[in-house]
Amino acid sequence: MNYLNNIELKLIKLLNKLKMKQKLSKKAKLYKTEALKQILSAIASPGMISLAGGVPAPESFPLELIKNLSNEVFDKYKTKSLQYNKTCGTDELRGTLSEWMNKKYQMNVEKENILITTGSTQAFDLIGKIFLDPNDNIIAEDPSYLGALWGFDPYQPNYITVKSKEDGIDINELEDKIKKKKNIKFLYIVSTFQNPTGRVIKLSKRKRLAELASRYDFLIIEDDPYSYLRYKGKPVPPIKTFDNNDKIIYLSTFSKILAPGFRIAFAVASKEIIDLLTDAKESADLHTNVFGQLLVNEYIQGNYIDKQIKKIIELYRPRYLTMLRSLKKYFPKTAHWTEPEGGMFCWIELDKDTDTSKLYKRSIENKVAFVPGVYFYANKDTKNTLRLNFSNVSKDKIEEGIKILGSLLK
Amino acid sequence: MNYLNNIELKLIKLLNKLKMKQKLSKKAKLYKTEALKQILSAIASPGMISLAGGVPAPESFPLELIKNLSNEVFDKYKTKSLQYNKTCGTDELRGTLSEWMNKKYQMNVEKENILITTGSTQAFDLIGKIFLDPNDNIIAEDPSYLGALWGFDPYQPNYITVKSKEDGIDINELEDKIKKKKNIKFLYIVSTFQNPTGRVIKLSKRKRLAELASRYDFLIIEDDPYSYLRYKGKPVPPIKTFDNNDKIIYLSTFSKILAPGFRIAFAVASKEIIDLLTDAKESADLHTNVFGQLLVNEYIQGNYIDKQIKKIIELYRPRYLTMLRSLKKYFPKTAHWTEPEGGMFCWIELDKDTDTSKLYKRSIENKVAFVPGVYFYANKDTKNTLRLNFSNVSKDKIEEGIKILGSLLK
Repeated sequence: MNYLNNIELKLIKLLNKLKMKQKLSKKAKLYKTEALKQILSAIASPGMISLAGGVPAPESFPLELIKNLSNEVFDKYKTKSLQYNKTCGTDELRGTLSEWMNKKYQMNVEKENILITTGSTQAFDLIGKIFLDPNDNIIAEDPSYLGALWGFDPYQPNYITVKSKEDGIDINELEDKIKKKKNIKFLYIVSTFQNPTGRVIKLSKRKRLAELASRYDFLIIEDDPYSYLRYKGKPVPPIKTFDNNDKIIYLSTFSKILAPGFRIAFAVASKEIIDLLTDAKESADLHTNVFGQLLVNEYIQGNYIDKQIKKIIELYRPRYLTMLRSLKKYFPKTAHWTEPEGGMFCWIELDKDTDTSKLYKRSIENKVAFVPGVYFYANKDTKNTLRLNFSNVSKDKIEEGIKILGSLLK
Repeated sequence: MNYLNNIELKLIKLLNKLKMKQKLSKKAKLYKTEALKQILSAIASPGMISLAGGVPAPESFPLELIKNLSNEVFDKYKTKSLQYNKTCGTDELRGTLSEWMNKKYQMNVEKENILITTGSTQAFDLIGKIFLDPNDNIIAEDPSYLGALWGFDPYQPNYITVKSKEDGIDINELEDKIKKKKNIKFLYIVSTFQNPTGRVIKLSKRKRLAELASRYDFLIIEDDPYSYLRYKGKPVPPIKTFDNNDKIIYLSTFSKILAPGFRIAFAVASKEIIDLLTDAKESADLHTNVFGQLLVNEYIQGNYIDKQIKKIIELYRPRYLTMLRSLKKYFPKTAHWTEPEGGMFCWIELDKDTDTSKLYKRSIENKVAFVPGVYFYANKDTKNTLRLNFSNVSKDKIEEGIKILGSLLK
């Protein structure tokens, strides 16, 4: 009797699952792929050398400073730090960020040009909500940051892809494709130390991109989480600084230059665009957590940020150099890789016949994880690339991991 | 020359605005109404007695306790409190919440049944993403919480409305409408001290709702932010406790029983539903802020929560009693209002000819704000109701505000 009941219960459960699947929206299946979930869970297995992450090193977080700032926030803002606040973000942080951007880049933005988002991830979703209907054309570099593709995917855009070159997106290919296709909603691009390639768009191309956006009337989503992490070479100003025509939505975040756990990021754009994104944010999460916003405000106002960025760079630079040295030492001559001037990633191109998803399986057995490049292509059509992270691995482990990977490649 | 340039610049700006409008998605215009924005900004004007808000009293926030817990979080979890974490929420808080729910309601949920959301607002959006295609049928009470309607609106559901009665939703009307319409995705309902009416669904109706969901195969979104704020009468268990068939998604939040600024809320549902919502959350904001999650975890683990709820009730009860007394004293005999046993709101029904949007304009001139009821109806078809808040107004101001409103009604 109990046995029958058990079977019955299992059948009911199964039936419920099937019924539930019938209830799902068409876009429900457009969220993250199962394959990638498996990769992410493999990273966490014990003894794994993970070159797969995109995560800052926890030892870079200024724990004592943050603890002190947190007490300051409660003492200074009292219950304001705990109450509901504006959807666009606190006046304090938006004011501070506009001054900070203006000083840093000789820009001329006001707090009304700024929206605080719950991570840049949220900005992708809000942009999808406000600008994308199914089959709308958007342009992505090949390869692109996969988190942004995930953000746009559920809005079912038609991706037009443009090759990434050593000095940034291929401008001629871009202009050709723009001329052919009408109604392009936007170009999504990481302008400095791109994820996954680590590449920087050179100055002349930045100016050209701003001009093209204006001439052909499309928006540019300029995503800039990494530009502060520069280990050599000279800084290049954001494309946004060349935007005379309100065509650029600039995104940045405190996840890589303070701590990601607070989920504090921001968008800079025309007031009209900020208002539209704010309306969408209101029914997405009402507002970003106020405590985190005020803490970041004190972090910038107290002039801690430049010192902290320096400390992060000092931590990451030896890891970065170790990765470049190890690649040279252990990888086959047929492999090519980017030599980025900053950021958190190196990007490897292997010979055409190598499928890095297959390599990944062998690599995991040998306790080294990376991300196969295929996930970074909007059209999932390139198989011989892979991304390596150096920010959250010790020098020894970087060398050991690259050595193992190199031996698998030979 | 400068003058011409100015005109030219203005024309270019105007042209850009028009071009930008052409770029918007069809759903971009489905976000919040302009009229409601004006109401919300009026609330903030100086000297206004606002009975319009839905906000906890800041003097209820345990500032010193939170400051201490915050130091505890940094000392105990160290850099873990600052790093990226799982999309579904920290293991710590999900574990604690499942134990808390099981103890409180004799339920049997595990941490895999729990998703931490960035406010319940985010849960509405995630549910929309996973379950709603345009023109899908969903059922809402008339009236319903407007924040939930905002959350669902951009997914363009077809609203089927069912009358709210003194003892909760009209079950017979509900069953009639379910029989007529096939393919109902879900019923959205605030089960206890509903926003806006303050009403509680009685026990027998709760059991019936769970049965109906199972028999007719629809989900129930049970939203429960207020049940802890009970000033009289006996608690009623959530509808979720009668859910034998994985048909109910239960939502609750720490916004009303700790502080809303942290944006910590949670959903309880079957593992399948939690997984689907988690996938959608991954590209919505990756995860909710970790610091807030760990702080709430310490708040529950340290047994502070029951004492704090008691304190909030002691603060709100006199305000609640003042509002009921003042309504009796100053409002016309033709007006009807709910006498809730808890929560934050009273709901007023005036005679059929009164349009509370018109009343609102006169009321604002007399420095009293409320929310006209029309915004709480999915089909915006009832004009003679209004919502009054008592949680964030002093007793004196409540009496003064109700007196002014009463004189305008006479």
